[in-house]
This record gives sequence, structure tokens and C-alpha cells, in this order.
Amino acid sequence: MPSNAASHSSGNKKLHFAVIGGGVIGGGWVARFLLMGYDVSVFDTAPDARRKINEVLENARRSMPGLYEHVLPKEGRLVFCPSIAEAVRGADWISESIPERLDIKQLAYAEIQAHCPENAIIASSTSGFKPSELQKNASTPKQIIVAHPFNPVYLLPLVELVGDAQKTEHAANILSDLGMYPLIVRKEIDAHIADRLLEAVWREGLWLINDGVATTREIDDAIRYGFGLRWAQMGMFETYRIAGGEAGMAHFIQQFGPALEWPWTKLMDVPALTDELVDKIASQSDQQSGQYSIRALERIRDDNLVGMMRALKVKDWGAGNLLNQVDQTLSAETDPEYPINMGVPCCTTRRVVPSSWVDYNGHMNDSHYGEVFSKASDVLLAGMGADQDYVSQGYSYFTVDLHISYLAECLAGDELAVFTAITLAEGKKLKLAHEMKNAEGEICATCSQFLLHVDLNTRKSCPPRPPIAAALARLQ
Amino acid sequence: MPSNAASHSSGNKKLHFAVIGGGVIGGGWVARFLLMGYDVSVFDTAPDARRKINEVLENARRSMPGLYEHVLPKEGRLVFCPSIAEAVRGADWISESIPERLDIKQLAYAEIQAHCPENAIIASSTSGFKPSELQKNASTPKQIIVAHPFNPVYLLPLVELVGDAQKTEHAANILSDLGMYPLIVRKEIDAHIADRLLEAVWREGLWLINDGVATTREIDDAIRYGFGLRWAQMGMFETYRIAGGEAGMAHFIQQFGPALEWPWTKLMDVPALTDELVDKIASQSDQQSGQYSIRALERIRDDNLVGMMRALKVKDWGAGNLLNQVDQTLSAETDPEYPINMGVPCCTTRRVVPSSWVDYNGHMNDSHYGEVFSKASDVLLAGMGADQDYVSQGYSYFTVDLHISYLAECLAGDELAVFTAITLAEGKKLKLAHEMKNAEGEICATCSQFLLHVDLNTRKSCPPRPPIAAALARLQ
Repeated sequence: MPSNAASHSSGNKKLHFAVIGGGVIGGGWVARFLLMGYDVSVFDTAPDARRKINEVLENARRSMPGLYEHVLPKEGRLVFCPSIAEAVRGADWISESIPERLDIKQLAYAEIQAHCPENAIIASSTSGFKPSELQKNASTPKQIIVAHPFNPVYLLPLVELVGDAQKTEHAANILSDLGMYPLIVRKEIDAHIADRLLEAVWREGLWLINDGVATTREIDDAIRYGFGLRWAQMGMFETYRIAGGEAGMAHFIQQFGPALEWPWTKLMDVPALTDELVDKIASQSDQQSGQYSIRALERIRDDNLVGMMRALKVKDWGAGNLLNQVDQTLSAETDPEYPINMGVPCCTTRRVVPSSWVDYNGHMNDSHYGEVFSKASDVLLAGMGADQDYVSQGYSYFTVDLHISYLAECLAGDELAVFTAITLAEGKKLKLAHEMKNAEGEICATCSQFLLHVDLNTRKSCPPRPPIAAALARLQ
Repeated sequence: MPSNAASHSSGNKKLHFAVIGGGVIGGGWVARFLLMGYDVSVFDTAPDARRKINEVLENARRSMPGLYEHVLPKEGRLVFCPSIAEAVRGADWISESIPERLDIKQLAYAEIQAHCPENAIIASSTSGFKPSELQKNASTPKQIIVAHPFNPVYLLPLVELVGDAQKTEHAANILSDLGMYPLIVRKEIDAHIADRLLEAVWREGLWLINDGVATTREIDDAIRYGFGLRWAQMGMFETYRIAGGEAGMAHFIQQFGPALEWPWTKLMDVPALTDELVDKIASQSDQQSGQYSIRALERIRDDNLVGMMRALKVKDWGAGNLLNQVDQTLSAETDPEYPINMGVPCCTTRRVVPSSWVDYNGHMNDSHYGEVFSKASDVLLAGMGADQDYVSQGYSYFTVDLHISYLAECLAGDELAVFTAITLAEGKKLKLAHEMKNAEGEICATCSQFLLHVDLNTRKSCPPRPPIAAALARLQ
């Protein structure tokens, strides 16, 4: 999990990242590293590399902070280097994201290994090649592994790791620190795991278009209104496990088994990529999505991903569970380890406004001010000892009265801080005063909140239990 | 789109549905029909059919209403029939969801056609058979079409329609009324569209397991932490269009083309479903998901789907756009066509609490009371003429002060109604008083809200434009 400052699972030294090749994937890596607080050195020969990377970064800055309930660490420093030698000097992790040509990659590794630290990880973003292919002729073969991410790298958690066991284990720790989901692949195989599945669908899709059975839009709709929604939270096997019901997975397979023998696929064969087929697909795609620029589509995609991943946080499931884990580490800065004193505000929340919170007026909807204050109260309560453990013992606080004054608009991407003071603590009564400020220190809203301590079994108010009562008494 | 009462796109007669076969899919159809307000007759020979259908219904009742910002129509009436003849009598739509055996299906159609109205639609849920196969020997072949839904039918919108052009067109209208997404397939083909794609992934997945490259969990993780999230909102082609960037789709295909020639797949061949492979998959699945019962998994899945689809509503995209369309029709009951009078409350919201709104205290989080009131204000403002058109002219209302008193807990699935009165309307000032009641008529919360009319260009308060000013003047 990411840390707010220099401390790190790999020791106290703050890691330094290098990225060789700054296309969509390389730029995505740059964004992920920088926004998680690390410095990045980039080498790319393309004349417009800087522009392209900045475009990816801009997308990342507007979407990625919205995944979390706390602010990300201070953005790292981005340096463009004139040579591979300079970019990889002193790097702990070198991300190779150059075109998918084995000979070019091998040349790059020779140059990288001539200048990088010997214990650095050289991680290729290749979607197809096996480590053994990448490592051929390398001076230190084991140093080169596959770390295959998914676009957009700054939002999607998955990274497939293939290569030396010790190196991939180490790489997995670093990726977890970046909020990603490392999946160590047991055996090296062309295209790893995910791209084999994708390739299968891609081939079938090409046949459907080639044969005039469906257009690109129809295939996309068949995915996103149906199984795509299922697969965003459970994969194929867990989904089928449910379909199998009480009878179990073995029963399901045996039932579904005969279909394997049916002629349901043309996958034994590959359609020829004639100019005609390419034109057909391209023009269908124009018809489907041509009303949006690529930039607009990227933003729609990113907003949707953030919204859906945030939805998974509520149930602490899959990608949402991962985000919650990151949140726990990010909250270190605002976790109330401070002494809480009556009437003295302390910082209970630092967060960024996700784009999904913006309404038709173009600003954070009034109801989300309440959401921010509600989370701030949770932090303060937890700091007093009324945390999840206390709740599981059957006690909690319920809000009975809330008064919000709205003083300034908040926009998507704005950083907000909430300062909370206890203004009354008498028996079961607790009053909080919140102040929400933006990054300029302007007060956006104030809130006074009246809570009652309750017994969760009777759902009625009651005096707090001794540890909380004692904590409250100390406030006076 | 669904209507609240008997009126309907297919005329004023309220449609009657029959379901033959009440398994997971048949039960899902039953739930979708009933919860959208239609009566359903069911025939199933299984002794535990009633229990199974009720289990699906229970799942649907706890999740489906949470998709919408308005209550669904009054639930239809469910009747279990002792024969096909009785079930299909007078039915407008007969959903056939019996096992995937062509001979049994053909027998069922003979019995259905002997007793159903001649203009009824007989819609098979088959995932594999073509209409021409189903229709063989039928007395009225065209009457039989494919309407292939996706599990859970009460949440996922996609239905693939295959068959006679006129019949599928008519069926598409009915499915749209049910809040579903009809996809008319241009050519009949084994397994239609989606299941061809699924079958391709399934085969590749079996190989990966068979060869010990990945476990069921690893394959699922490769899906749900990566491309599964992408596919829940854009499909494959729109996603790749973005990956292709400014260079366009044709460029992307040509770039990706060579991969088609690579040995990235074993799909030319099908792994033998030996007992050993079946056991391997089943035990991996147990290890992955065995800590949850099937029922628990169903609920997790449903909550996740509702949460993610609700997230897509915010951006009005894909499945979220579909939900918003349904909401527009459902809102008919609360749309303020009533005369608005000063101080006289009118109903501005009727909705159900989605499970994603429940917090660690087991009840609707305090911030969502604010969300309900915020939406209620939008309805009242739109009723006064301050609607989306008015906003696009550059004028709106901003909340400046909000006071909520919490009087009762609300639980997931609770139906809530909000009654809103204008208590002050003076120039740019507007005050609203909201009352939130549950289905028992108990007041759950009250809210007083102070709004100011603003110019969206200057972001400063200003007097309302003539139509709104006139509407407010009439209130006095």
C-alpha cells in the first residue's frame, strides 16, 4: 500500500522509477508512479513524447484521486532524459513500454543493463512475449521480467507478473504499494493470461463482423449490457458457480460441457485481415463512437471506471476492496492520533472531489457535502474509540440533527480538508462542528452535527460504554 | 419504458406474461415481469419450482428497486398453473425457459401453440439454438423467436432477439417497456452473439486450467481487475478505439493484426472434459469462493451490479442511460403537474433505499437523507419551470443552507416518499420544507432548505427569469 512520505515496504529509501517509451502504456505508468508520490525519469525518442505523456497525466490527475477518500501523496517529480543511460541511472524499477518488437526490446535491455543498478527490476509491459524471449542474450537475464498492465494504467489495478520467482515477488510488493493488483503467472506462456482471453474474444468478434452477423456496436452492446457488467466484479468462473447453483461447479461444467462439442465458434480459423474487413470495422466504429473525440471517450471511460470502482468500495469487493486498503494507508495523515480537546478542531478528512459527485450545475452536489462531513465524523468517532470494533460490540452513534451552511462551490478535482471539533459531550449527547476548506484555505461549508450514542440491538439511545465515556471525560 | 398503470406502448390493454420452466432463467423472467407490474402465469413440473422461483423473486425484490430513483409499479400477480394449456391461455408473451434439448422444446411449443393466442410471442431463452431449429414442425413457425436474456434477468438489461423481423420488432418494444435492452441479431447463428464470445473465453479458460497455467481464481482476477471493468461500460471495440488513439481504428487493427497470426491461443482445439479436469476446476472454484454460499454470492453480485449500474447513471452512459430512461417514465406519478401552492406540500419523490446506501450501522447513511431531499428539490424546481432547459439557458438554484432532523431509521428496500412545500419565494430567495415518510406513513426526517437563484455564468445570485418569476408570483 502507498505511504504518504518516504517510508516504504521496501525499506526507508524512496523508490525511483524509470520509464522507457512514453506511449499510452508508458505514459500510464508515469502517471501511476507520479500520482502515488514517486519521482520518474522518462526516455522516449519521439518528438511529441512530452505532449503525449502530459495528456495521459492530465487524464490521470482528473480521475485517479477520485478513487480514494483521502488525498494522494504529493506528486513526484517528472524528468525527461536525453538517453536511456541517464533515465535508468539509480532507478529501482525500469518500466519498458516500447513497441512490440523483440529485436528492439533486446537492444533496449542491453543499453538499460549497461547503466542501471544490478538489483533494479526491468519490467516489460509486453502483452505477448515470454520472459525467456526477452531475456535472450541479456547480461543478467533474471533481472528482466514481464509486468503487463492494462489501459488506463492509472486506474485499472491488474498487472500480470511473469519471470523469476524472487524478482516477481519483489515486484508484487512494489505494485501493491502503488495500489495495483499484481497477479503472478505460474508458467510463462505467450500473451500471459488476460490477453489470451481477449485474443479469443477478438478473433470471434472479427468473424462476427466479417460474416455480417453483427456490427462493432452490436458486439459492444452484447458485452456491456450483459456479461461485461458481471465480469467487472466477479470473473467467469465465480459467475458460473452461481449459475450452477446448489448443485455445484462440477455439475455446471458437466451440464455446459456438451456445448464444447457444438460448432459455436469459428475460432479454429482466423479471418484474413483484408483491406475490406479493416475498412468495415473502422467505418462501423466511426458510426458507433465517431461523435466523440478520443479525448472525450477517454474521459467518459475514466469517469465510468471511477464511479464503478467507487461503487465496489461500498461492498468492499474486488477492485473496491483494493481501494479501501489503499485508503487505510492514505488516511495515516488524518487519523486522529492527536490529542482531542473540547472545541479544538483537528483535521479529520483530506480528499479530492470525484467527477461522479458533480451535478447539472457543474459543481459538487449539495448532498455530497453531507457525505464528506459524515465521513469526517466517522474518523473523529474512531479516534475517540468508537471504531469498527466498538460497533461490532453493539454500540454506535446516530446523527439526529445536521445543519450545513454552503459558502463556496467545490469542483471535480478540488482538494478538500475538513476540520472537526467536539463542542459538546454530555452522556449520550455529542455535538460536532465541522469546517470544510479548499486547497486555497477558503471555507466551502460549515456543519454542526448532533449525535446520540445508541445500543445497536435495541436501536435506542444509551450512555456510552466505559472506554468512550472515559475518553469523553478527558475532553472536559 | 414501463408505465405505472395499465397504459402501455402496445395499447391500453395490460400485457399478460406466461413462463414455462421456472429455473434460474425462468425465475428471473418471472421476477422481471412481476416487479415491472405485470401478472405472470407459470408452469413448471419440478416439485420445488415454487420454492426456487420464490428464491429468485426474493433476490429481485431486494435489489432491483434500488436501480431506480422512483418506485416501481405495484407488483403483478403470480399464478402457478397445473398445465401448459392453462398457463398460456390469453398470454401475450410466453417465455420458454426449459432445458436445452431441442426435442423437449419442440414438444413444448406444440402444446403451447395448441392453447395460446395466435398473435402471442413465444420467446425461447435458449442460449444456443437458432429459431429455424426451434420452429421445425411448428404449426405457426414465425410465432417462435429467440429472446435470450442474461443472469440475473431482473438486473442485467441485455436480451438477444432472433427470428421473424416483425415479431422481434414487436418483442423489442415489450422488452424496452420492461427496462431491458433488446439487441436484434441480424442473422440466425448458433449461440447468437454474446455466447459465442463467452464460449471463446470459456474454451481458452479451460485450456489455461488444464495446462496448469492459471487457477479459476487467477483467471477471474485477470478479468475483474482488468478488462472486465472496461467492458462493463464500453465493449471491446470502443475500448480498442481509445487504445488506437488519434490514429484511428483502422490503424489499431493493422497494428494489432499481426498478433492474429501468433500462436496465442489453443482455440483450434477443445480440451477433453475428463473427470480429472472437472474435479480440478470444481476444487479450484471451492477454494476461490467456497467460503460463501451460493445465496451469499448472489447477493454480493446483485449489490455490486446495482451499485455499478447506479454509478453509470451519473454519467448517463450505457446501462445507466437505460435506467435513467426508465426513471423518466416511472416519475410520472411524482412529476409536479399539480398546481403548486405556497405552503402546500406535494409529493416530489417516491423511491426505494438501495443496499449501497446502507452504512456500518445497518441503516441508510445520514448523507443519503440529504441525497433524497436534494433530488426532491430538483423535482419541485423542474415543476416550477427551473428544469434542464432553464439550466442550459444559464440559470439555476444553489442550496445555501440545509437543516435535517433525523427521526427514524431507513433500511435497504424501504420505500420512501418526500413531500415538499414552498415556504418562501421572494425574488432570488426560495425556501423549501421537506418531509420524508416511509411506507407506514412514519416521518423519517424533515428538512428545511434555503436556495438562491443564480446566474450560472457569473456564479452569482440574481433574480429569476420572467417565466420562473411569474410562476413564483402565482404562488402568493
